[in-house]
Order: sequence, then structure tokens, then C-alpha cells
Amino acid sequence: MQKQTLKQHQTIFKAGDTAGTVFLLARGSVGIFLPTNETKDPNFVIRENEIFGEMGVIDDELRMADARCLEECDVISVTKDEFNTYLNESNIFVRGVVGILSDRLRKIQKPSK
Amino acid sequence: MQKQTLKQHQTIFKAGDTAGTVFLLARGSVGIFLPTNETKDPNFVIRENEIFGEMGVIDDELRMADARCLEECDVISVTKDEFNTYLNESNIFVRGVVGILSDRLRKIQKPSK
Repeated sequence: MQKQTLKQHQTIFKAGDTAGTVFLLARGSVGIFLPTNETKDPNFVIRENEIFGEMGVIDDELRMADARCLEECDVISVTKDEFNTYLNESNIFVRGVVGILSDRLRKIQKPSK
Repeated sequence: MQKQTLKQHQTIFKAGDTAGTVFLLARGSVGIFLPTNETKDPNFVIRENEIFGEMGVIDDELRMADARCLEECDVISVTKDEFNTYLNESNIFVRGVVGILSDRLRKIQKPSK
């Protein structure tokens, strides 16, 4: 687990980056910009105590959007291994539901595989 | 949490039933039959240690398929309240990821809302 303080406009990740981490926004706000977005307005805004970049620990795909700080932010990141450790410490029903929901989203997002 | 031993061919839930519980199959095998299925062959087979009926604790929709025992089964069920208790005891990243994945699947499955 790693905590970082990032400046306004700083990039957290970009579309096409390798993933492998999930983020918790502890302070500030983060904009998610899809590749088709040519404006300065984010498609989604992440608020304090929200998670983002979650597919980074669910899937092995590259990042599908840019994430940039809309103001100064504190961001906590955990790696896939750390996330899996937390998951393995969870109740069997929680673990099972995460597995099923992840599989289903992976299939929906990649219908050709 | 409730553990039950069920007989071959016994119905666990039917499409249209109110939901509100998720199941863990501790022993045996369970067939999932979609409403369009008029055969005796299930669309999916749930095996030992697998979870099923998970949307019952994620969503407030009715069951979308029938679940029937393909042989004698031990089934453990937990209610939405029990599941939420387990979830609240989980790491914040696990809790956050379950929330995001659930929201996303709900939206995909009900695009009109």
C-alpha cells in the first residue's frame, strides 16, 4: 500500500498504461477522461473515499481512460497482490461474489474472448 | 446463515421469486435453468464450493432463472443483511470494489434505468 500526495492536473494514469493497481481517493477529486474526450471536462469525477482504477486488480487489460487530479489529492494505491491478500482474508461469500462479478464484467467487456 | 440438505430435483428458487439471499453449494451440483430453456439440461451447472444466486444480495430484482438440485446437495444461504455484515468487515478496497462492480452490473442489466 502506498500513499501519495499529488498536485492539481497531475496524471495518475493514462489510457494504454499497464494497470495492476487500484486507488482509493483519500482527499481531493480526480477526473476520469475517456480517450474520445477532447474537452477539459472529465467524463466522471471521483470523490473522497471513492475507489477508482478497480479493473486494474480484476483484469489484466491496459488502462482504458486517463485519471487526472482536479485539485491537490491524497491517493492510496494497492497492488493486485495486496488486493488479493485482502480478498483472501474476507468471508467466503464476499470472496465468491467478487469472483463472480469480476468474471461477468470481464466477459461483458470482452465478448469476443 | 442457514444450512440445508436438499434432495435431487428439489427446487432452490424459481424465476420470478423474490430474492434476498445468496447461496454457497457445499456439496452436490445445482442446475441453473433460464426461463427460455424447455429441456431437462441446465444452462449452467454450479459445482461444490461455488456461489450462486449472488444478484439476490446485490440487487432488488426477482430471480431470473430456476435453480434445481441435480443430485442431493448441501446448500448454505445467507441473507442480504448477513452478506452486508461480512462486507462491512472486509478491507475498504474489497468493499469499494464490490460496490463498483455491483453498480456496473446493475446498470448493464437495466440500461433503461
